[in-house]
Amino acid sequence: MLSESDKPKILIALRPALYDLLFADEQKERLASLGELSLQTQAGNLSEAQLAALIGGQDIVITSWGTPVFSDAVLAAADRLKLIAHSAGSIKLMLPPPVFAGRRVTHVAYSMSIPVAETTLALILLCLRNYHKFDRAFKDGGWAAARALPAGGELAGARVGVVGAGYTGRAVIKRLLALDAEVWLCDPYVDEESAAAMGVQKAALEPLMRECPIVTLQAPATAETYRMIGREQLSWLRDGAIFINTARAHLIDEAALLAELQTGRISAALDVFDQEPLPDDSPFRKLDKLIITPHVAAVTRQSYKRQGEITVDEVARYLKGDKLRYEVTRDMLDTMA
Amino acid sequence: MLSESDKPKILIALRPALYDLLFADEQKERLASLGELSLQTQAGNLSEAQLAALIGGQDIVITSWGTPVFSDAVLAAADRLKLIAHSAGSIKLMLPPPVFAGRRVTHVAYSMSIPVAETTLALILLCLRNYHKFDRAFKDGGWAAARALPAGGELAGARVGVVGAGYTGRAVIKRLLALDAEVWLCDPYVDEESAAAMGVQKAALEPLMRECPIVTLQAPATAETYRMIGREQLSWLRDGAIFINTARAHLIDEAALLAELQTGRISAALDVFDQEPLPDDSPFRKLDKLIITPHVAAVTRQSYKRQGEITVDEVARYLKGDKLRYEVTRDMLDTMA
Repeated sequence: MLSESDKPKILIALRPALYDLLFADEQKERLASLGELSLQTQAGNLSEAQLAALIGGQDIVITSWGTPVFSDAVLAAADRLKLIAHSAGSIKLMLPPPVFAGRRVTHVAYSMSIPVAETTLALILLCLRNYHKFDRAFKDGGWAAARALPAGGELAGARVGVVGAGYTGRAVIKRLLALDAEVWLCDPYVDEESAAAMGVQKAALEPLMRECPIVTLQAPATAETYRMIGREQLSWLRDGAIFINTARAHLIDEAALLAELQTGRISAALDVFDQEPLPDDSPFRKLDKLIITPHVAAVTRQSYKRQGEITVDEVARYLKGDKLRYEVTRDMLDTMA
Repeated sequence: MLSESDKPKILIALRPALYDLLFADEQKERLASLGELSLQTQAGNLSEAQLAALIGGQDIVITSWGTPVFSDAVLAAADRLKLIAHSAGSIKLMLPPPVFAGRRVTHVAYSMSIPVAETTLALILLCLRNYHKFDRAFKDGGWAAARALPAGGELAGARVGVVGAGYTGRAVIKRLLALDAEVWLCDPYVDEESAAAMGVQKAALEPLMRECPIVTLQAPATAETYRMIGREQLSWLRDGAIFINTARAHLIDEAALLAELQTGRISAALDVFDQEPLPDDSPFRKLDKLIITPHVAAVTRQSYKRQGEITVDEVARYLKGDKLRYEVTRDMLDTMA
């Protein structure tokens, strides 16, 4: 047993309510056994100045949604910091490049890839077969009203375009292939050989959007992907195409998408919006061929606590000297959110 | 080229509208190249007497929904009949055991297994995550109303009980395993070794229903499966369990299921009902935790024409002397619908 002073110092830079949401009691106990914990006491998010005041002398910091940016002032105060364990997905805005000088970073994007991939698959099947419309027409209008709806299409044998092969894109691809879809992938950081090993056909965005009757976005929010789908790109979609965004609103020119959807030419499902909460008067609430969900693609009973569990696993690996499973390095940053 | 008299005689014992629905022009042309066709001319279904009057001298008969029973009188008239190619799934009621004496039978249940498996998977994901409720609450009540819905559960890591491993059960199992579910199977005709080879855990009905929080029926309608799920079996389900029937209403005591659903203890999705069309005053139309679809699990734009295509493929294989892909033999009949 280490003496108190030998134990690594771990700062939990999370609102207490968020700490409770993400970390089960079992994980809190594991964490306490791994180091000397300092818990954030204030109910709201920390400011940069508050984080700077807390971070001196800490070896490890656990972060998540709402932790402030690791600015130069924060880093100047972080005299012993060696590991940032981020118990959420996107890190780029919180962790600018200087963070990586002499410090290691890990995150839990993998955890969210499971529920987001399941959501993406479910939304594709819903857009193909319209089970929600059958249920509603059956309950509201009866058998004949429901039977009057047109037959849907099958996923088996369909060509699906996936844009982006990060954790979530790969989880989506695995599921689509298992369901006998043909998958095309647009991801400039995946070469032909890796694409072939994944069982997918590499394609540029234009042929992918022209040739795939189903297209799903799984790209990260980076400078490169900002508004990558605009009026022109949407015009490439076939009549009757299915378009899914469970990734980021950042990827789409929302006005162009709205205009395209209002023509009724394509079907779509959206989980993310430029402005959240979506305003009550949003025209996105009025479209019959659009399924909307309120940014819940990653939200399951399992997902929050798994984020905490993976975070503690990574801290334990770091302290034992084992390889981190989900390390983020400086050179990965350009292609990540 | 065979002379007309040498060509096999093929009777199409289908209503003309159904022949058009199931057989694309290309398949009709292939069929005409394979034999001398006799097409049913009357718009409605044939009676047994009408079928008996047409079947003399025919080598092959193509059947489907609405073809009458091959009674002793029909068989007595079928002096040359060697192949019955059924362009639908269930055959038992149409083809009693004497049919198999000196005649071969094939069917297209495989064709329907694809859309039914996709439907089953989609309905499981819908019951787990309630995307249809998010969409409806978001559109009817706005962002906050939708966000107030509870978080759902994940399929990955969940234990799913599948009852029946025919074509559809196997197609469902393949998809569930690919999505990282743990699968238990209840099927008295699958032994431990075959179950292990399939990647599933063999189980009797009671432990399966007690231990699996998700249960889906894919069993055929046979004497053995009639009302196999009644009040006692439903009581085995856990609180909050998900129960899916995309197979046959025959399998369930519908009154017992209704009573169970009215307690709100479980969620369910049903595609089949004892009485179809479901009467307008059916209490199944009033249940919030039940998704209902009007017997469309197998109905897609692809499925009808694929039934015709597989049927013609089987006729072509038979005439070339190749092995049939979907032959039904007398000894398979007991465990089939």
